[in-house]
Amino acid sequence: MVAPKTWVDYANLGLFTDLYELTMLQAYVEQGMDGTATFSLFVRRLRARRNYLIACGLDDVLSYFESLRFTREGLDYLASLGSFTERFVRWLKQFRFTGDVDAVPEGTPVFENEPILEVTAPIAQAQLAETFVMNQVHLQTVLASKAARVVTAAEGRTVVDFGPRRMHGIDAAIKAARAFYIAGVAATSNTLAGQIYGVPAAGTMAHSFVQAAKNEMEAFRAFAALYPETILLVDTYDTLQGVRHVIALARELGDAFKVRAVRLDSGDLADLALRARAMLDEAGLRNVEIFASGSLDEDAIAEIVAKGAPITGFGVGTSMGVSQDAPGLDMAYKLCAYGGRGRLKLSTGKPVLPGRKQVFRVEENGRAVRDVIARAGETLPGRPLLRPVMRGGRRLPEGTIDLHAARRHAQEEIARLPGHIRATLPAERRYPVEPSEALRAYQDEVAREVALADRDAAPSAL
Amino acid sequence: MVAPKTWVDYANLGLFTDLYELTMLQAYVEQGMDGTATFSLFVRRLRARRNYLIACGLDDVLSYFESLRFTREGLDYLASLGSFTERFVRWLKQFRFTGDVDAVPEGTPVFENEPILEVTAPIAQAQLAETFVMNQVHLQTVLASKAARVVTAAEGRTVVDFGPRRMHGIDAAIKAARAFYIAGVAATSNTLAGQIYGVPAAGTMAHSFVQAAKNEMEAFRAFAALYPETILLVDTYDTLQGVRHVIALARELGDAFKVRAVRLDSGDLADLALRARAMLDEAGLRNVEIFASGSLDEDAIAEIVAKGAPITGFGVGTSMGVSQDAPGLDMAYKLCAYGGRGRLKLSTGKPVLPGRKQVFRVEENGRAVRDVIARAGETLPGRPLLRPVMRGGRRLPEGTIDLHAARRHAQEEIARLPGHIRATLPAERRYPVEPSEALRAYQDEVAREVALADRDAAPSAL
Repeated sequence: MVAPKTWVDYANLGLFTDLYELTMLQAYVEQGMDGTATFSLFVRRLRARRNYLIACGLDDVLSYFESLRFTREGLDYLASLGSFTERFVRWLKQFRFTGDVDAVPEGTPVFENEPILEVTAPIAQAQLAETFVMNQVHLQTVLASKAARVVTAAEGRTVVDFGPRRMHGIDAAIKAARAFYIAGVAATSNTLAGQIYGVPAAGTMAHSFVQAAKNEMEAFRAFAALYPETILLVDTYDTLQGVRHVIALARELGDAFKVRAVRLDSGDLADLALRARAMLDEAGLRNVEIFASGSLDEDAIAEIVAKGAPITGFGVGTSMGVSQDAPGLDMAYKLCAYGGRGRLKLSTGKPVLPGRKQVFRVEENGRAVRDVIARAGETLPGRPLLRPVMRGGRRLPEGTIDLHAARRHAQEEIARLPGHIRATLPAERRYPVEPSEALRAYQDEVAREVALADRDAAPSAL
Repeated sequence: MVAPKTWVDYANLGLFTDLYELTMLQAYVEQGMDGTATFSLFVRRLRARRNYLIACGLDDVLSYFESLRFTREGLDYLASLGSFTERFVRWLKQFRFTGDVDAVPEGTPVFENEPILEVTAPIAQAQLAETFVMNQVHLQTVLASKAARVVTAAEGRTVVDFGPRRMHGIDAAIKAARAFYIAGVAATSNTLAGQIYGVPAAGTMAHSFVQAAKNEMEAFRAFAALYPETILLVDTYDTLQGVRHVIALARELGDAFKVRAVRLDSGDLADLALRARAMLDEAGLRNVEIFASGSLDEDAIAEIVAKGAPITGFGVGTSMGVSQDAPGLDMAYKLCAYGGRGRLKLSTGKPVLPGRKQVFRVEENGRAVRDVIARAGETLPGRPLLRPVMRGGRRLPEGTIDLHAARRHAQEEIARLPGHIRATLPAERRYPVEPSEALRAYQDEVAREVALADRDAAPSAL
């Protein structure tokens, strides 16, 4: 079996960038600005319903850096825009990424202002990547973080991704299956993602199959004949009548009846599950489980679990697939060093921590108690989270990501979070994150430098 | 210039489907169920903040149907799952779409329960397509509908798409540029989308360019030298000081100063715009416009416009790019006919209108007043919205979509909506949509048939 690593031809993604990155690149090239820059990717503020985030998307970032090129068609298009010189277009033709990446491993819980990754490279290279790097890490972090909440709410019951049909495009639906798997989701309905990533693919049956058959009983009979251990969808016409049809099928088939579960997809799921359970038990079908789907999110699942409804698995679609309550994060990719000097912005409400950084997670009795954002090179108490994953444009062993290892890592790291942070309810006390003394002092120093340089430049007439 | 029509290789998308579609397909094939089915794509309910939707995504649906195949790698993967017979895998190898599609043109406003498109084909073909068809029409309709609200709020001022970095993946960021353009957005920052679709690409400069320079003045000087008609970003350190630097540059350059605008990206945009306008005017720079960005959505823009802030263009990112307030729609793709008979479901709260349908938009004095959902073939007052776009797997001329025509169409059709429906505020009176008498009677008839067939099947013991 030949499984492609990804469905995207990265060689075509040179132009997947905001136009202003390219106009800035030309300006850097024209001015001979080829000094080393560090850009830091982080989330400024967590939303009320996100006590923590699960970092995700690094593998695609590294694949992008490994193979980033401009095609002839792409360069012809740029030339046609009238803003780019022949010289610059020739420069792009030779473009390769030769820089470094430091990152927290995929599946690591992260908090506000903590670097998820830092790119250090000649400024043009690190600048160009902004759009793709943010696009992928944002998407995958949004989705993994949402899924972790759903998995938490399910308290050990199976969660299956049913979202591809309402996720935002092909790429999101494929990457989601991977991000969800890292966050603890058991399987995906997305067959292509199953092929690409080896994530377990799963599915039951749709209403259309029941509708197209002569009647529901016929549909169940035919499907179970072909897939003895299937899950039968019972709500097309009347949920409890559907359950009766499953019981009738069990009587027909005797020992050959292997149906694994019934699926409820509408109505009051907890109440229907209790009734269905009682009917199945009374018919001696204690092994037939109840699987539920239909507009589920972490709140609905928590409510069902709290009611003690006898549901053993959940199919979760749109809400998890688009991260309905928080489809966007306040994520930024900001220049924090250039030419050996720390850089920052002073824009209202949008600060940047200068220089290359490290994050230390301080634990007590195996439980995370606070994070300290430090300058790179500092040695402080706690576990350092950022690791070198790419040097000189090549992946290091740490950058070769095993999906199953990332899933285990996420599970272990989430288990180490304080209970109120791991919970799906908004934490009254945020998880403590603070800059180190050295970083704070450096921030003040750089702010003074910037103000001074700016004052020097200000024309006296103004 | 060779512009690829799309960045996706549709030939690889056979597996982009929920696994259950394939298990159902095998069951159809095993049972010899090759009758003609119609599936209808529609949105069940509109959300409070969507008075109407803009249908979008048809072009990608038709491209998919034209080129849908299974690759050898895909088939090998399916064979490895253990659920599929060799015979079925051989059948998939030959798979081609040979069916019909009827659809409303892209850019058409649609309402709840109205078919956006209907697929009529041998049941396996129409079933398989569910995941892709919904994924694309959902995404593009979500985004076009959000963008139409933003454009309405801007009241004629320019809106530019700044969203690619926080949209959900590569596909979403590319398709969004097209959907936004249809909905009236002027340009995109997404260079690849510019290449693929010919949508105008636009951009200014980023904070990093200012941060990397010796100081802001130097950054402005260098950028304007290379791009005389550029837009300068003034909020990296202090917005009004940034405006002063632009004025100083104008004095330096004299007649060579051609800078088109300044961009505000943080703080109180309306207030800063008023102050910046006064400073620029006083310096004789009346032609330098003010462009604003930073966490904008239709509400923020409406507020800025209401305050009379002298802003002539808006860069809109995350909120429009992920449709923050409504990232998911209650969209469904449901079997409504098979083997010459109407089909429906009776699941709680999720009704289906049976049979092939047509929608008539009734207008009075050039203003839409109500829609009637009818059976296909009915002739009723009003304009029919659904048109044949594909027959026997081939696009008809109506299915060849010109992007600029779709944009004009959207503009014209939105202008015909009642004012309270076009508005961004939730409409107190929903736009009236009702089934025709014939459709209502047919729905009753099919419901009776289904109940009867189901009662016949129910084992008497239960």
